[in-house]
Amino acid sequence: MIAPLDRSRPEPLADQLAAAVIAWIEARGAETAAGAALPSIRRLAAETGVSRNTVVEAYDRLVAEGRILSRPGVGFRVAPPAAPLPPAAPDPGGVAAVADRVWRLYDDRPALLRLGGGRLPDDWHDTTDLARAIRRVTREGGRALIDYGTPLGEPRLRRLVAQRLARLSVPVAEDRVMLTTGASQALDVVIRALTRPGDAVLVEDPGYHNLFGLLRLQGVRMVAVPRRADGPDLQALDAAAAASGARLFVTNGVLHNPTGSTTTPQIAHGLLTVAARHDLTIVEDDIYADFEEGSPAVRLAALDGLDRVVMVGSFSKPLSSALRVGYVAAAPSRMRGLVDVKMLSSVASSRFAEQVMAVLIETGGLRRTAEALTRRLARQRAALLPALRRAGWRLFAEPRGGMFVWAAHEDAADARLLVDAAAARGIGLVSGAVFRPGLEEGAWLRINIAAAADPRARAFLKDPLG
Amino acid sequence: MIAPLDRSRPEPLADQLAAAVIAWIEARGAETAAGAALPSIRRLAAETGVSRNTVVEAYDRLVAEGRILSRPGVGFRVAPPAAPLPPAAPDPGGVAAVADRVWRLYDDRPALLRLGGGRLPDDWHDTTDLARAIRRVTREGGRALIDYGTPLGEPRLRRLVAQRLARLSVPVAEDRVMLTTGASQALDVVIRALTRPGDAVLVEDPGYHNLFGLLRLQGVRMVAVPRRADGPDLQALDAAAAASGARLFVTNGVLHNPTGSTTTPQIAHGLLTVAARHDLTIVEDDIYADFEEGSPAVRLAALDGLDRVVMVGSFSKPLSSALRVGYVAAAPSRMRGLVDVKMLSSVASSRFAEQVMAVLIETGGLRRTAEALTRRLARQRAALLPALRRAGWRLFAEPRGGMFVWAAHEDAADARLLVDAAAARGIGLVSGAVFRPGLEEGAWLRINIAAAADPRARAFLKDPLG
Repeated sequence: MIAPLDRSRPEPLADQLAAAVIAWIEARGAETAAGAALPSIRRLAAETGVSRNTVVEAYDRLVAEGRILSRPGVGFRVAPPAAPLPPAAPDPGGVAAVADRVWRLYDDRPALLRLGGGRLPDDWHDTTDLARAIRRVTREGGRALIDYGTPLGEPRLRRLVAQRLARLSVPVAEDRVMLTTGASQALDVVIRALTRPGDAVLVEDPGYHNLFGLLRLQGVRMVAVPRRADGPDLQALDAAAAASGARLFVTNGVLHNPTGSTTTPQIAHGLLTVAARHDLTIVEDDIYADFEEGSPAVRLAALDGLDRVVMVGSFSKPLSSALRVGYVAAAPSRMRGLVDVKMLSSVASSRFAEQVMAVLIETGGLRRTAEALTRRLARQRAALLPALRRAGWRLFAEPRGGMFVWAAHEDAADARLLVDAAAARGIGLVSGAVFRPGLEEGAWLRINIAAAADPRARAFLKDPLG
Repeated sequence: MIAPLDRSRPEPLADQLAAAVIAWIEARGAETAAGAALPSIRRLAAETGVSRNTVVEAYDRLVAEGRILSRPGVGFRVAPPAAPLPPAAPDPGGVAAVADRVWRLYDDRPALLRLGGGRLPDDWHDTTDLARAIRRVTREGGRALIDYGTPLGEPRLRRLVAQRLARLSVPVAEDRVMLTTGASQALDVVIRALTRPGDAVLVEDPGYHNLFGLLRLQGVRMVAVPRRADGPDLQALDAAAAASGARLFVTNGVLHNPTGSTTTPQIAHGLLTVAARHDLTIVEDDIYADFEEGSPAVRLAALDGLDRVVMVGSFSKPLSSALRVGYVAAAPSRMRGLVDVKMLSSVASSRFAEQVMAVLIETGGLRRTAEALTRRLARQRAALLPALRRAGWRLFAEPRGGMFVWAAHEDAADARLLVDAAAARGIGLVSGAVFRPGLEEGAWLRINIAAAADPRARAFLKDPLG
């Protein structure tokens, strides 16, 4: 009944067999065939002269495709014809029409050069160490593959995070570290644990767009504190805290997104003094730590001993955003609330991903990868910054490392002109308005230093409106 | 300077070398050694007669442990002695003291028999297919390893979800499916997108404890609708919707947690009629779909065509909670809001995990695993239910499948008696109060059918207060 297979053809036998079964079903007409029994695995193997494994493989694929059904104890049967999947909805209000400015940078169009994007280009990533670590954890198997992590996350990785923080002079025991599904979940958990709708929260302007979105989602009132080249504007912070009654300030001190600036030790100390005056809790977003060049900058959490500072970090930037591993470090008194929110919103983070990250740290893979990327970024930046200045770009700060430079062009008082000009040349930029809590338009843009090395980017940056 | 290695010892040479470097540092005194240059990789390899790779491995481990520093272009140096990590905080308000009833079931004590737990015992899981799928995705490499997914999630897996839903007569195009970090994130995203603080939301009583926590976190008011053996109590639903003005009802129709009951077609139809009367949106939590026995139950989303129903699902239950892959299916008009919340709170889900899950479905691994577990659960249940009845347990409903039975014992009007008696015998139960939106204590307990097969559980269930 099933057509014979042809071993001289290049297609694998399982593919041929699956196609032959479909041909048999379609020859009978899917409607009339529905429910008909298919030969047992043993019989079909004998009939067609292939191994039983090949039959299992072919049947499994057809089950996955919904062409046949497997009924325990009964065997395989022809599936009733599925109602065709509805076509993608044409409505203009749906997802297909979503084209907000941030989204465009996450989409899957490979042709777009993400000059305004937040990640390293794909071809900068070497996945050798990562693949090796995944293979090792998979080989060790066991609970890493099947189980939730514990509420705080895998102890082995928490210990490594504590050591990492100790090297930044942030003293923290491993039970003061909670692992999260990337730094995004960490920020989300911290906001949900530490704020209530209607609260005022101090944020940097410009700052991290997803943070602003999370705060809006929580229904809090954002109060902007200008970001300077040396850190947050302390006078403005002092005045905003007094006027708003805010009790929380979120800051991205090291290699700040989007400006690339790093808070100086003096501003860091002053910031904690202002915070003490207004009893502010500070969330220190430290996700670019792996891209620092030279000696590490002073962390607020180091000066403060994690008293009023809650620190958020990540391993995603140099290695992999696909793994989604981040962390929060906080004082004992705050941990209970943080863990509760994490458990409610995700039960636990991925033990598998946490084990992989632990192996990558223990074997030096993270260090090697981060160092190589940091050196490459430094080289690109050394070439890029003078070229930008020559081409009429004004730079907000001289970045000490990292992926971003915040720039404005003398010929474009409105950055949207540049965004449109770039789009016409297949280059994705986002207007700096995205990085402002009030979405105010202006002259500034974030430029991704890695993407700027592409010849299309170089040509555009040299003469953006030409 | 570094002590010679002994090839006759069983320890790997890299371990011996790392130990020898530490011995050298400690012989000099960590304080005085700090900053001292270590031999180059080439020199140390020559001195000790090991390969350069062995030296790199030893140095990498010492860098990861914080004993030595790597400075690009300079080489390896002895690290300054780290401030000792602070000891675990003794304060009783901290995380170490957290022992709320749900948490206990997630902890890492291997000796505890989780008779009240929500998962299958570790030894029920066969990770062969999962490990194979991970290896395949790792071998294919590329963006799966390094990159965020797209906002909706990996198209390949969304297509498979759409096919899965089509087999349940839920018509959905793949662009109406959003992948999430487990069903937990799916529920969280749905709640945040569809409710505002102060809203009233209808929930099942008893129901899923994490859902109640998420709703509390969002600041909404929960209105309880009694769950019966055949589904939600429709008269109570009607009255509660009218009295509260709620616009959202969350229900776990198939293999309901904690009662094991499944909504009948008649109640499903009636539920949608009540929903239409009050213009309710319904969240249908379908995470136990893989454990159904026989023909699938009627889904609300199938009757309603995903008009007012938002469906939440998962692949975690049979396979792996470590992967964290779930999904939401919804009408086009709702997708934009859902995707926005997902992007804000996590940027994206794990493309790696999504690829692994796609491979597991395409190769039949999910089907095989789910079928084997479902058969095993059916056998256990067939033995357990009569034994429970003989031992004086009253059952809320006769489960059609799944992991749970909801039971009360004739000798314990307060389930806490049973929880304490079980704890004294190394068995973890949770009082049914955890599954009630108002946390009311009562006689009911959730029993995990898989864990009940353990001899300790059998002895306890036979004579719980003896």
